[in-house]
Amino acid sequence: MPLTFDLPGMTDMTITTNQQVLLASRPQGAVTEDNFRIIETPLGVPRDGEVLVGNEWLSLDPYMRGRMSDAKSYVPPAALGEVMVGQTVGEVIESRDARFAAGDKVLSSLGWQRYGIAKGGELTKLDATRFPASYYLGILGMPGMTAWFGLTEIGRPKPGETVVVSAASGAVGSVAGQLARSAGARVVGIAGGPAKCRYVVEELGFDACVDHRAGRLYEDLAAACPGGTDVDFENVGGVVLDTVLRLMNRHSRIVVCGLIAEYSAGEPYAYTRMRSVLVNRIGMQGMIVYDWKDRYGEALARLQQLLGAGRLKYRESVVEGLENAPKALIGLLRGENFGKQLVKI
Amino acid sequence: MPLTFDLPGMTDMTITTNQQVLLASRPQGAVTEDNFRIIETPLGVPRDGEVLVGNEWLSLDPYMRGRMSDAKSYVPPAALGEVMVGQTVGEVIESRDARFAAGDKVLSSLGWQRYGIAKGGELTKLDATRFPASYYLGILGMPGMTAWFGLTEIGRPKPGETVVVSAASGAVGSVAGQLARSAGARVVGIAGGPAKCRYVVEELGFDACVDHRAGRLYEDLAAACPGGTDVDFENVGGVVLDTVLRLMNRHSRIVVCGLIAEYSAGEPYAYTRMRSVLVNRIGMQGMIVYDWKDRYGEALARLQQLLGAGRLKYRESVVEGLENAPKALIGLLRGENFGKQLVKI
Repeated sequence: MPLTFDLPGMTDMTITTNQQVLLASRPQGAVTEDNFRIIETPLGVPRDGEVLVGNEWLSLDPYMRGRMSDAKSYVPPAALGEVMVGQTVGEVIESRDARFAAGDKVLSSLGWQRYGIAKGGELTKLDATRFPASYYLGILGMPGMTAWFGLTEIGRPKPGETVVVSAASGAVGSVAGQLARSAGARVVGIAGGPAKCRYVVEELGFDACVDHRAGRLYEDLAAACPGGTDVDFENVGGVVLDTVLRLMNRHSRIVVCGLIAEYSAGEPYAYTRMRSVLVNRIGMQGMIVYDWKDRYGEALARLQQLLGAGRLKYRESVVEGLENAPKALIGLLRGENFGKQLVKI
Repeated sequence: MPLTFDLPGMTDMTITTNQQVLLASRPQGAVTEDNFRIIETPLGVPRDGEVLVGNEWLSLDPYMRGRMSDAKSYVPPAALGEVMVGQTVGEVIESRDARFAAGDKVLSSLGWQRYGIAKGGELTKLDATRFPASYYLGILGMPGMTAWFGLTEIGRPKPGETVVVSAASGAVGSVAGQLARSAGARVVGIAGGPAKCRYVVEELGFDACVDHRAGRLYEDLAAACPGGTDVDFENVGGVVLDTVLRLMNRHSRIVVCGLIAEYSAGEPYAYTRMRSVLVNRIGMQGMIVYDWKDRYGEALARLQQLLGAGRLKYRESVVEGLENAPKALIGLLRGENFGKQLVKI
C-alpha cells in the first residue's frame, strides 16, 4: 500500500520505494565499491510505536571499516545482504510514537538508506535551532564525544604539556586538538598533505602540524616536539603510532582511539617500539566512546557551549547523493576527506 | 696501606685486594662472558662518612641487560671499564659513619665486587633476624616491591578475575601471582619447561601454568583461560605478550613490568596484536618500581607480614663465587634460573 503525505513545497506526493545501500561482500584488504550493492525496495509503513524517518545526512566514519569485517570486534559485524550500518540525521515523516511528530529532526542508526522505520526509543530528537542538525553527526555527536572523553578522561593534558594528535583535520582529531589547546597544552597535529596541515595550524590553531606524507615523519615530528610528547591522541596507528612511541616522555599517555592505518591493511601492522611503554612508563588506553554513554549529556553541554562561544572550529566535507556513499567511504579510509565526512542524501 | 681488622673466626687478617667484575664491552644481541672482565685491585680505605662493606650476596636481575646497553633507558647505562652495576647485601667491616657499626647487615648498590666503599646515605641497614638477609634482594627487595606495586596499583585484580603472569617462577612473577591469588583471582602462570610449571602450580599455588616452550602457547593459554584474561602481569614480552593480547578481555589491564624476551634480541620484537588494545579497551601501563620509592616501607611491611604468616612461598637460585656471576646472568637471561637468582660472594 503506497504511503501518502506532504513534503514542504510538494503536495500529496506518494513515496513507494526506498533506496538502500547493502553490504554485499566483506572487503579483503581495502574496501572497494563492489563490496556494496544499491537497491530499490518497497517502503514499509510504521506500526504502533514506530516512526518513519526521511534520512537527510549520513555520517561516514573510520569505524565502519571494522564493521564490514567479521573479525572479532567490540560490536557484531554488519550483516551481509543487509543495509550498511551508520548514523543518520533526518526528519520525521510519519510518527506512531507520541514523543515524535512530523517535522522533528532526529538522530538515528538507520544506516545507509533514504528512508527508514525505527522504534521511537531508537531515535534522539535534536534541537536544530542553535546548530545545524548535521553537527550531531560530528562535533556534537559521536566524534565530538570521542574527542571529549578521550582527551579529558585518558589524555588529561596539563598546561605546558605537548599533545600530538594524528588525523588532526578529521572529525575526532580536530576537536581533540582544539580541546587540548584550550586546556593550555602545546598541540602538534599529524595530517596528510600540505593543505590539511595548513588548515590544522591556521584555522584550528594547532601550534604545528606534520605532514606524514612528506617522508620524514620521525625527523619532522621530533623537530615539532623538541620537549618530547606527553599525550598522544592516536587515531591512525601503524607507522604513525610506532613513530610517536619514539618521542613519548616519561609518564606520558596514549589515547588509542583509532587505528585507521590498520583497518584496510591485509596484515596487521608490526609495532617495534613497545619497549618505550616500559622504559617511559607510558599509559596506553584503548577507548570506545560507548563506554561513556551515560555521560554523553555532560559532554554535549560543554561542546555546545564551546562551539556557541566560537572557541571550536568545525569543518564538514559533504558528498551529494546516497549512491556516492561507497566512493566517499573509500576516500575517507584513504584520508582523502577534509573534515567530518557526510553524505547528503 | 693495608687494612687490618677482625673477621669472626679469624684473627688480625689483612685484606689488601678487592675482586671486581667490570663491564668490558657492550653486548651485541645476547650477553657473553667476553662482555665482562674480572680483575684484582687494591682495596681502598673508608674516609669520614664512608663505610667499608664486605658483599655477601649479589642480586642478578633482568634489568641488567638494559644497563649493559647504551640505548636510551630509564637510567643511564653502566659505564664501560667500571664495576658492573647491581644490588648487594653485605656486612659492614669498618664504618666511619655513626649510623653503622661493624657487623651490621646492609643493602647497597655496590655492584659486582667483593668489597666496596659507600657513603652511609647510600646504605640501608637490614634486620636480618626475622628473615635471611638475602631476602632483601628478592621477595623483600626490589623484585617484591615490583610485584606489589604492579599488581595492586596497575593490575588491580578483582575476585574471580583471571590473571596471567609470565616468568611465573621468577623473582617478580612468583610474588605477583601469589598476591593475585590472595586477592581472590584465578591465576595462570607462563613459564619455561615442565619443572618450572609444576613448581608454579604445586608449590606457589597458581591455578594453572602453561609451558611456553611446548610450542602451543596460544592453544594452551586459551585452554587455561576459558573466560579470557583480565590482567596480564607481563615480565617477558615478545611472542608471549603478543599471544596474551589475543586473549585479553574488555577493560582488561596489562602491567608492562619487563620485556626480557626483547632485551637480548638483536632486533626489537614486532607486535601484531595492538588492535586488541583498541577493541578491548585495554589499559597498558609501563612500570619501573623506582616510581614508588616513597612507598617502599608500606609494601615491605605487607610483604613481611604475608611471608611471616606463611602465605608467600619463595625460592632462591644460588650460584657460588663472584667469578661465576657473568655465566649466571647469561643463564638468567635465557630463563635457566629457577626462582630468584643470587650470587654468593
